[in-house]
Amino acid sequence: MQEHFQDRIRLPQLRERITSAAEAAMWVKNGMTVGMSGFTRAGDAKVVPLAIAERARHEPLKITLMTGASMGSDVDKILTEAHAIARRMPFQADPVLRAAINRGEVMFVDQHLSETVELLRSGQIAPIDVAIIEAIAITETGAIIPTTSVGNSASFAILADKVIVEINLTQSLQLEGLHDIFIPKHRPHREPIPLLSPSDRIGTTAIQIPPEKIVAIVITEKLDSSSTILPPDEETDAIARHLVNFFKNEVSAGRLTESLLPIQAGIGTIANAVMTGFIDSPFKHLSMYSEVLQDSTFDLFDAGKLDFASGSSITLSAKKHQEVFDNIGRYKDRLVLRPQEVSNHPEVIRRLGIIAINTALEVDIYGNVNSTHVLGTHMMNGIGGSGDFARNAYLSVFATKSVAKGGKISSIVPMVTHVDHTEHDVDIIVTEIGLADLRGLAPRERAQVIINHCVAEPYRAMLNDYVSQASERGGHTPHLLEQAFSWHTRYRDNGTMMPGPGKSSGVEARLADTVIG
Amino acid sequence: MQEHFQDRIRLPQLRERITSAAEAAMWVKNGMTVGMSGFTRAGDAKVVPLAIAERARHEPLKITLMTGASMGSDVDKILTEAHAIARRMPFQADPVLRAAINRGEVMFVDQHLSETVELLRSGQIAPIDVAIIEAIAITETGAIIPTTSVGNSASFAILADKVIVEINLTQSLQLEGLHDIFIPKHRPHREPIPLLSPSDRIGTTAIQIPPEKIVAIVITEKLDSSSTILPPDEETDAIARHLVNFFKNEVSAGRLTESLLPIQAGIGTIANAVMTGFIDSPFKHLSMYSEVLQDSTFDLFDAGKLDFASGSSITLSAKKHQEVFDNIGRYKDRLVLRPQEVSNHPEVIRRLGIIAINTALEVDIYGNVNSTHVLGTHMMNGIGGSGDFARNAYLSVFATKSVAKGGKISSIVPMVTHVDHTEHDVDIIVTEIGLADLRGLAPRERAQVIINHCVAEPYRAMLNDYVSQASERGGHTPHLLEQAFSWHTRYRDNGTMMPGPGKSSGVEARLADTVIG
Repeated sequence: MQEHFQDRIRLPQLRERITSAAEAAMWVKNGMTVGMSGFTRAGDAKVVPLAIAERARHEPLKITLMTGASMGSDVDKILTEAHAIARRMPFQADPVLRAAINRGEVMFVDQHLSETVELLRSGQIAPIDVAIIEAIAITETGAIIPTTSVGNSASFAILADKVIVEINLTQSLQLEGLHDIFIPKHRPHREPIPLLSPSDRIGTTAIQIPPEKIVAIVITEKLDSSSTILPPDEETDAIARHLVNFFKNEVSAGRLTESLLPIQAGIGTIANAVMTGFIDSPFKHLSMYSEVLQDSTFDLFDAGKLDFASGSSITLSAKKHQEVFDNIGRYKDRLVLRPQEVSNHPEVIRRLGIIAINTALEVDIYGNVNSTHVLGTHMMNGIGGSGDFARNAYLSVFATKSVAKGGKISSIVPMVTHVDHTEHDVDIIVTEIGLADLRGLAPRERAQVIINHCVAEPYRAMLNDYVSQASERGGHTPHLLEQAFSWHTRYRDNGTMMPGPGKSSGVEARLADTVIG
Repeated sequence: MQEHFQDRIRLPQLRERITSAAEAAMWVKNGMTVGMSGFTRAGDAKVVPLAIAERARHEPLKITLMTGASMGSDVDKILTEAHAIARRMPFQADPVLRAAINRGEVMFVDQHLSETVELLRSGQIAPIDVAIIEAIAITETGAIIPTTSVGNSASFAILADKVIVEINLTQSLQLEGLHDIFIPKHRPHREPIPLLSPSDRIGTTAIQIPPEKIVAIVITEKLDSSSTILPPDEETDAIARHLVNFFKNEVSAGRLTESLLPIQAGIGTIANAVMTGFIDSPFKHLSMYSEVLQDSTFDLFDAGKLDFASGSSITLSAKKHQEVFDNIGRYKDRLVLRPQEVSNHPEVIRRLGIIAINTALEVDIYGNVNSTHVLGTHMMNGIGGSGDFARNAYLSVFATKSVAKGGKISSIVPMVTHVDHTEHDVDIIVTEIGLADLRGLAPRERAQVIINHCVAEPYRAMLNDYVSQASERGGHTPHLLEQAFSWHTRYRDNGTMMPGPGKSSGVEARLADTVIG
């Protein structure tokens, strides 16, 4: 058997560590902190986690689980159902885990994606006991070559006491060379990150660790989970159109060139659709410096619009997955996957001048953004990398459809019930109605621009009423505190933000938005 | 007359540009954008602004006014009274201007202090027509040597069409060499900021501009305004003690050394008092990488605790001002003043691993911080640099007294009415009651730690009631939306956050906190 894996486990003595998922899972003890590979369903540990869940059904076994971002393969679901997760960070997107978080059963720590390994490295959160990392191969020196994501895998492996590697035979060996592993030094000896362009390579192609830390190797053949994004629709097309027009104006005004600046796009349907919209734009030689590379990245490559894409993972629909990975050689020299600490690093984002395009759950009339909490209380997924980018970007864009639930929810509200991105970090709000350019505006002006450009009736009139009543009371940021959340409580109590019990919505029911659903 | 200023205006032909403040002010036209030196009352333009105000009383003259941060010399007050300010950014701290902002008469753009010149440089806000910069001298090549602050002066002068220099004879020529002017390049050609330690010098000692841009020079003898901080009191001493104990524990745990990491301290009484508290700590060889250097910086130098301090301004009490500037030679080799873009730059803050200590107006049970808005609507001063630091710091600390207005206001509330710093960016909350270490905690845990450690009765019991009622409804971040601001509306309507009309507070009336006052 061992000879079969000469190309996958190139350090011969490590082939002796090949074992079953069940055996490997025995390294994990109750109360441990486990770091797993996986970022937006890509490159995740796939079989050892399930063996941990299996054990947790029969014995006391609760862990702190850290990942890059969201896991595929129902890992979060199955571990939650087995009551194996005590604490989870920094992101998740699973309905079963989400429900457990909202019941208060799992302690979820919602973190900026660039920060988790900083906290680990400086000992500010509990250390990693075991890292479980998916790989295409282990090199002659025992270094781990990741698969379709880097995420936090490198620092997890470096900081862990013990490392379990899942060699995934479905992940092509052609991915070798795609990754660029750079780890900042400990303070106070840290130096600048020498990355001056999205295409710069500044590290190694594999994760260097002492091979004796690799205590188990498990061979798997499970595919990455496909992305769940929906195709573009009328509203996302309109959002993309408004943004392309905005950027055309920026080029005309001489503020940007036709290659713009490196673009980051958040995960999900709207951000993917916006990027797809650039196919029919006049821009050329675009670049991406982003977290997750979705279908649209490869559509833009194929359309000749995109020169280079830097990310931390590649997450594709089933169809696109096959197209891309069957032809990875065609894209490989225009791609790099980095640790999320680097892809999302404030230093690099500020230096390169990123155009950050992220999705809002709701925004308020002053431009504060809620990315995470339904009705201010119930977690959806987490802030992810949106804060890493919005806070340090050249331009911070938030996109949302203007209504959800067939018009029963307005995505623009008097006051957001939870703030993930403050007014200081939001430059552009765009909906299918239009685009609000908030740069250099004071709150009272921001309110007018957002209401007039991004909101349809009858919510527009309702927001204008709110602002004019509030403004009579005065203040830099006028509000009626006793009514600020009345739209939300009305939705909670009556099932609609429209006033009057059972009053039917005058808003055209466009689409039951999956973001809030 | 001109010969008198050989040491102050070293390029001879520029001595011909000496004129009166009234004449210099004529370069400013109605509708222009004017950039003035000045950061936390230090190194501000002092006489030309008043001449602008004088003109505005007799002719239509409204400007957009940009500064580094707050101005002294009543400049903001006098310009506001003359109705000369249409738009103001990025910070202010004047009661008269504040009132005009809250009436909606002045459009105030509350910005992260590191960002204003980024927006200017990239043309995203209106360009600077005229810069008015206080200087100790102009060099042989026409370069401007600032006084007690750098702030945004360098970029204002570089980006402005025309520059007016106020040579202030009360500012010592010994300040020459104190400044370190470094300006990032335009994107996409920007390189790393080569700053690896607070004491590194990476730029020039003066602001290099073409001398022909200097259209007027005004000679002044007005002193910098003194800082308005109050001396430490019982509560601020307790806050400092809790923080020193926290850091002792961090050193014991091996997470920090006895020199900690470079410290940033926000402006104001509490932050100054906290830094003063380090005099009686066991820490040694401390360093500061901050914005404003206050009295405590020099007390720490004198106590032999502080090795080096980097800032963007020096703002002192009247007594300390004389002590320090009469003996500036004693401190000069341990000080540097930088542009606020560099002192507050995310890249440098993340690299150095700053310990950021800022003041909160109010915090909520989940660790969100309001730094700016009284009752969610009325602007106090602005976010200043607190976001630049908190978002990228190694450790983000917010300090506040637990109550204000003699106990009628609790500084810890169910939900803050305005969010400047989100839960993701707040590691430590400290009041005179105690310290809450929020690192690695989920919201429900954060609430318990904050309530138990930072709040005194009866607000503690009230917050526990709120949390337990809210938790019954579920959610990652439990809230009762219809009651979330009930404390604030009660204060607004009854003059106290305590329940029951006219019910007297059981909280010991410690001090009418000036922060909210």
